Amino acid sequence: MLELCLIGCGGMMPLPYRRLTSLMARYNGSSILIDCGEGTQIGIKQKGWSFKPIDVICFTHYHADHISGLPGLLLTLGNADRTEPILLVGPKGLVHVVDSLRVIAPDLPYPILFRELEEQEERIDMGSYYIEAFRVNHNVTCYGYAICVDRAGRFDVDRAKTHEIPMKYWSRLQKGETIETPEGITYTSDMVLGPARKGLKCVYTTDTRPAKFIYKYASQADLFICEGMYGNPEKKEKAMLNRHMMMSEAAKIANKAQAKRLWLTHYSPSLAYPEEYLEGIRKICPFAELGKDGKSLTLRFEEEDS
Amino acid sequence: MLELCLIGCGGMMPLPYRRLTSLMARYNGSSILIDCGEGTQIGIKQKGWSFKPIDVICFTHYHADHISGLPGLLLTLGNADRTEPILLVGPKGLVHVVDSLRVIAPDLPYPILFRELEEQEERIDMGSYYIEAFRVNHNVTCYGYAICVDRAGRFDVDRAKTHEIPMKYWSRLQKGETIETPEGITYTSDMVLGPARKGLKCVYTTDTRPAKFIYKYASQADLFICEGMYGNPEKKEKAMLNRHMMMSEAAKIANKAQAKRLWLTHYSPSLAYPEEYLEGIRKICPFAELGKDGKSLTLRFEEEDS
Repeated sequence: MLELCLIGCGGMMPLPYRRLTSLMARYNGSSILIDCGEGTQIGIKQKGWSFKPIDVICFTHYHADHISGLPGLLLTLGNADRTEPILLVGPKGLVHVVDSLRVIAPDLPYPILFRELEEQEERIDMGSYYIEAFRVNHNVTCYGYAICVDRAGRFDVDRAKTHEIPMKYWSRLQKGETIETPEGITYTSDMVLGPARKGLKCVYTTDTRPAKFIYKYASQADLFICEGMYGNPEKKEKAMLNRHMMMSEAAKIANKAQAKRLWLTHYSPSLAYPEEYLEGIRKICPFAELGKDGKSLTLRFEEEDS
Repeated sequence: MLELCLIGCGGMMPLPYRRLTSLMARYNGSSILIDCGEGTQIGIKQKGWSFKPIDVICFTHYHADHISGLPGLLLTLGNADRTEPILLVGPKGLVHVVDSLRVIAPDLPYPILFRELEEQEERIDMGSYYIEAFRVNHNVTCYGYAICVDRAGRFDVDRAKTHEIPMKYWSRLQKGETIETPEGITYTSDMVLGPARKGLKCVYTTDTRPAKFIYKYASQADLFICEGMYGNPEKKEKAMLNRHMMMSEAAKIANKAQAKRLWLTHYSPSLAYPEEYLEGIRKICPFAELGKDGKSLTLRFEEEDS
């Protein structure tokens, strides 16, 4: 299962009643954080999740509301006795930004690995899951992320028999191994598995105008978390100028991409009551929901639901 | 009147129920901030005080829990349309630390002035009030601060007459001016004023072992805010090793220095219930109080109290 928690849902500046936008996810003993503004570590503590398993932190971009909490989080990870490396992922410039911020967090008991994104689409392999990064459209280079868990097909006895695979190899092949026999025959896992089953996908994108690649990744997403900075149509011009997204635009994308769920986030500090706009938004996307600090969801493989 | 608010009272890391230690003060239209960890700006917002009049931010030292909130606060000050310069004060290294942190806050609509402290004691003149900085004893260079408002003596008619000062100069002399007459005579304000009256003083010191200069500045302070990182006597060794102060040590200083009020602050995250130690602390210093997030006090000149 993929556990998800929207740590905060605000943009620009943290407020007493609204943390800055950040997503934390847990899968198979590994934790993922996307964006880390001022106060994100407090939100994680409030959720009750542990810092220590955070293996990767992805940054959409380097505006302060998305990274200002990093030095404190890195120190707190150290205090949690982490010694394994942590991977930081973000647009070009990552090393410079993080090194500068570490002027107040110079001594850490674990190494930091960096992955600077430069392509339109990149895949970060994390073992049992992977993260897809895709460039969006803000006033600085900015990426969206998809946290993905693939699911192999069922074991297919008939298929294994058709390929005349000795039974002693079945279990290893089912786990994904490729086997070379002493006789020089190669067996691959697809020879014993049926078609891949539906996996899990959570997509997070903020600080962007609507963009082609958002549609692509939001497609069929189990959860699509998307910026909805303003609700009031009068703010459209401002949103376009500063390359932010309206709630209505996020709703259109979610609906067209046939995402299963939409959570809006990154509300402007001027948007005190996002609730006012929900009814209108649901006319565009009936499954739209408002993000809230701490809003959580557990995604399970389909058969596990029953 | 000097308005004081302890924005937070925690050390090391911000917690959902305890912000990092920081003091905000307001006097005569000017606001002063001492220390600015992650979340300080949220505490200011919660208190309901405006960011815009913050003229000076003093840093005790550059451990992250005392400065990690600076980039966000600087941006928020910009969003509050501040255009006047802001003065940053702290130990040597200030310019380097702030410039590094500003990698995520490069564009501000106001200039930043720096005052790097190098002496054991320094005075920062702020017009109608002043700040005294005094070096304390931590594992890095660290300063305590006293926010001081002086109060001149009463106008003394007899004194003015004794000095044969023409009445037309009285009012200007009372306001503190020095006057040179066309006849070449110099009149100073002390010629018309009685002895200086008691002013206002709030002293703030944290991340330090007890030190001589803390006694000096805490002497007769209207409010002495002092680190009390641990209550449990078993933590004494740890406190000495990392150069922090025990609650009992703060209480001894406050009592000996005859401060009028003591607020403890900078509690360790391990100190979940500072209340447990209050009874014991009050045996050392009967007027000791526990700092709490948002704890506030207004200091007034003595006669205004009645």
